[in-house]
Amino acid sequence: MSEPIPIVGGTGALGAGLALRWAKAGRPVAIGSRSAERAEEAAARVRDAVPGAEAEGLLNEEAAKRGEVVFLTVPFRAQSENLNNLRKALRPGQILVDCTVPLAAAVSGKATRSLGVWQGSAAQQAQEMVPDGVTVVAALHTIAAPTLADLDAELGEDVLVCGDRKADKARVARLVELIPGLRAVNAGALETARIVEQLTPLLISVNGRYKTHAGIRLTGLPDDDHWE
Amino acid sequence: MSEPIPIVGGTGALGAGLALRWAKAGRPVAIGSRSAERAEEAAARVRDAVPGAEAEGLLNEEAAKRGEVVFLTVPFRAQSENLNNLRKALRPGQILVDCTVPLAAAVSGKATRSLGVWQGSAAQQAQEMVPDGVTVVAALHTIAAPTLADLDAELGEDVLVCGDRKADKARVARLVELIPGLRAVNAGALETARIVEQLTPLLISVNGRYKTHAGIRLTGLPDDDHWE
Repeated sequence: MSEPIPIVGGTGALGAGLALRWAKAGRPVAIGSRSAERAEEAAARVRDAVPGAEAEGLLNEEAAKRGEVVFLTVPFRAQSENLNNLRKALRPGQILVDCTVPLAAAVSGKATRSLGVWQGSAAQQAQEMVPDGVTVVAALHTIAAPTLADLDAELGEDVLVCGDRKADKARVARLVELIPGLRAVNAGALETARIVEQLTPLLISVNGRYKTHAGIRLTGLPDDDHWE
Repeated sequence: MSEPIPIVGGTGALGAGLALRWAKAGRPVAIGSRSAERAEEAAARVRDAVPGAEAEGLLNEEAAKRGEVVFLTVPFRAQSENLNNLRKALRPGQILVDCTVPLAAAVSGKATRSLGVWQGSAAQQAQEMVPDGVTVVAALHTIAAPTLADLDAELGEDVLVCGDRKADKARVARLVELIPGLRAVNAGALETARIVEQLTPLLISVNGRYKTHAGIRLTGLPDDDHWE
């Protein structure tokens, strides 16, 4: 039996969509929330939507202990608080996948604009806050939650993955690519999250204009499996 | 006979590639340079590569007078100097298409990193520097010059267009879409150039890793002509 995928903030739109897709791909998921009750409700929705799904709902700190690669899918406003709460839960060797985007909406600004983060990006802020030995990888900023949550919707887009060690990014890439239609692309060092996080407000702006849920795809990449 | 397309800095890699592609599409081009001699050499190369091409080489200031939509394809290091030199050449009603990217390479840093520009983006700096009545549109940051310059290479990617008036962006979009395989996407107001200009260092980083010339394509956009 494979290890569960912990999703901190898994009751939010992105986290819930990921949980559904991974459950559908046959992977157990551990959905975390500040409320154990809401976590369990979200897990029940996954079990209802995907017959045979192994989904459990837990407090964030408990969920984070369930697997080696932990996804953090909370709004930027709650990122620091969540990372503080996770300090005693995370163990050396774990990977924290930060999906946070510093939208100006976090401080009642526009979702088509972003905030400057002192460390350069939300992911770099996360790297500063996790316990020693935990490495941060940034990914999944550009995947539209409504598309993810609609199991009938076909995906066909890229996930840009940033991190300082290729082996860590490759582990995340394997999980991302469990979801049909997603291709994980090595976008560079963690500092490149400064750029990748900005794609979300760009897509939000495009979505408003074109009435769609746009994604990103890089053209010209080789066809072979570049994560080997 | 259609109006020429002025390309300021048209002897550089991006400018030369655009000149070739537009000449191939049957449009006259006015290639500008600081040196009339080098401009004429570049124009001659276009005429050699594309039989029947109408390409002339001129000083930048002369080239900029040849058409209503002027493309500025110079390195960031030279952007301000070029805009200063164009002050007396540009006329109200013209559109300046800024293709500049503030790569850290401009100050001997890495091409995979960018500089902060006080106005927010190179395009916004350009808007501050052009004469009253000239509007700036930002575009073409993500098109690889080597692919553009290879007339046998098939393009299949998007050009994200930023500007404050849709009508101006639509005029630029029509010129971009004269080049087969390029789709112009309305990426929002000029301030969005803050994000779009960052895609170039991202792609340069990806290109190094994947040994390619990557481009950007947005997924999920409607098929109809959204510029009408």
